[in-house]
Amino acid sequence: MIKEITSLKNPIVKYALSLKNNDEMKKERKFLIEGFHLLEMALDYVEIVFTLNKLDLPESITQYIVTEQILDKISSAKSFQKVVAICKFLESNEEELASNYIYLDGVQDPGNVGTILRTALAFNFKNIVLSNDSAFLYNQKVIQSSQGSIFKENIIFDKINMLEILKERGYEIIGTSLTERSINLANFKKIPAKCVLIFGNEGKGMKKEVENMCTTLLKIPMNEIDSLNVGVASGIVMYSFKEKI
Amino acid sequence: MIKEITSLKNPIVKYALSLKNNDEMKKERKFLIEGFHLLEMALDYVEIVFTLNKLDLPESITQYIVTEQILDKISSAKSFQKVVAICKFLESNEEELASNYIYLDGVQDPGNVGTILRTALAFNFKNIVLSNDSAFLYNQKVIQSSQGSIFKENIIFDKINMLEILKERGYEIIGTSLTERSINLANFKKIPAKCVLIFGNEGKGMKKEVENMCTTLLKIPMNEIDSLNVGVASGIVMYSFKEKI
Repeated sequence: MIKEITSLKNPIVKYALSLKNNDEMKKERKFLIEGFHLLEMALDYVEIVFTLNKLDLPESITQYIVTEQILDKISSAKSFQKVVAICKFLESNEEELASNYIYLDGVQDPGNVGTILRTALAFNFKNIVLSNDSAFLYNQKVIQSSQGSIFKENIIFDKINMLEILKERGYEIIGTSLTERSINLANFKKIPAKCVLIFGNEGKGMKKEVENMCTTLLKIPMNEIDSLNVGVASGIVMYSFKEKI
Repeated sequence: MIKEITSLKNPIVKYALSLKNNDEMKKERKFLIEGFHLLEMALDYVEIVFTLNKLDLPESITQYIVTEQILDKISSAKSFQKVVAICKFLESNEEELASNYIYLDGVQDPGNVGTILRTALAFNFKNIVLSNDSAFLYNQKVIQSSQGSIFKENIIFDKINMLEILKERGYEIIGTSLTERSINLANFKKIPAKCVLIFGNEGKGMKKEVENMCTTLLKIPMNEIDSLNVGVASGIVMYSFKEKI
């Protein structure tokens, strides 16, 4: 369906604007994405598109041809985005789909969470569990830095204790932490068939109770400073695991 | 020297505020840092400190005991910082000090530049060359994400063509790029004794003329998406080089 809108007061424009509010977003279970790259990645989840010109998209997606003024108003990006879309919330799957998981334990910076989701897809870690105190998945910064990888992943909100469940299912629980019992990543040669990789909060690392659940702790040796950015650290660990498998 | 200031109109407070302007910063060759961690890393470069209470610092540093209102005004961080300092610009050294360099070719996001500087220190790449079109080193976001590593590194602004000079001095010039001639990072076993690692722009990668100067091109194999965040990619490459050396 293709329609034209020229007024900022149009109800569907108002609806799109309302989704900038986190509470509305959660109530409606819809969120906004911006730009052609994200749109392409998100197609399975897109319901409505706001565009300047008709796009070649599946019939099921409603296209609203709008003015630059309307697009600019709906978009939150600093630079002008030529397309904005309304997507339905992702569906997560708590069934056992693959043999590895990433668990984010209180990673709070949206840019870091998005970057980790992007890296996880690149290195084939498609199940990601977000602890309740991690950044909100539908934050625009998370979506942008994920480069749309969220639409190709199985993202689970940890309402029940996923770590315990996975441990019972025979997963090795692997944390990253600079403790005495931590093994140097380069010396960790035998990658387990089923594993969960945990990355902790930017300032505080993993929570004590999460660290206590780990069957293995890994560390990345470094000079002069005592920590890496969590996005960088997780990239190094995921890459090492992928190259060794 | 220790003095007390209670007025926002005090000339030294005004001077600190003026350093938020990039032109003033460059003219004065001074910049602001915030927070105790950065202060500790920056001590060799600190001239003036604004603090709520006297700190245990070298005599050469002037301490101004100020009100919360003044600190809040000088600081640019969202959360209240208990200390702000004025530092002199870093000194760079174009002499041959070590056998490896990082070259940032148009990396524009300040958070990415800061993160790369942090990772570089951790993995012992202490010479960093910034191309003219990379993010401004003294941007607050660069300084914050570097976690103070800038004060322990030799950071060079590429006014002359450093890549040519280093190539003439026998450095291997190694770029990262998904071209046909790129070698899989995991297969690149023999790390050269003298090398420059280049990381390119977030969207466009390395400039063509920079890529043409490379003696080796490396790639990180990945699934489904065709690029990693540049901070993550550089972390993986630096870690791999460090572990193989």
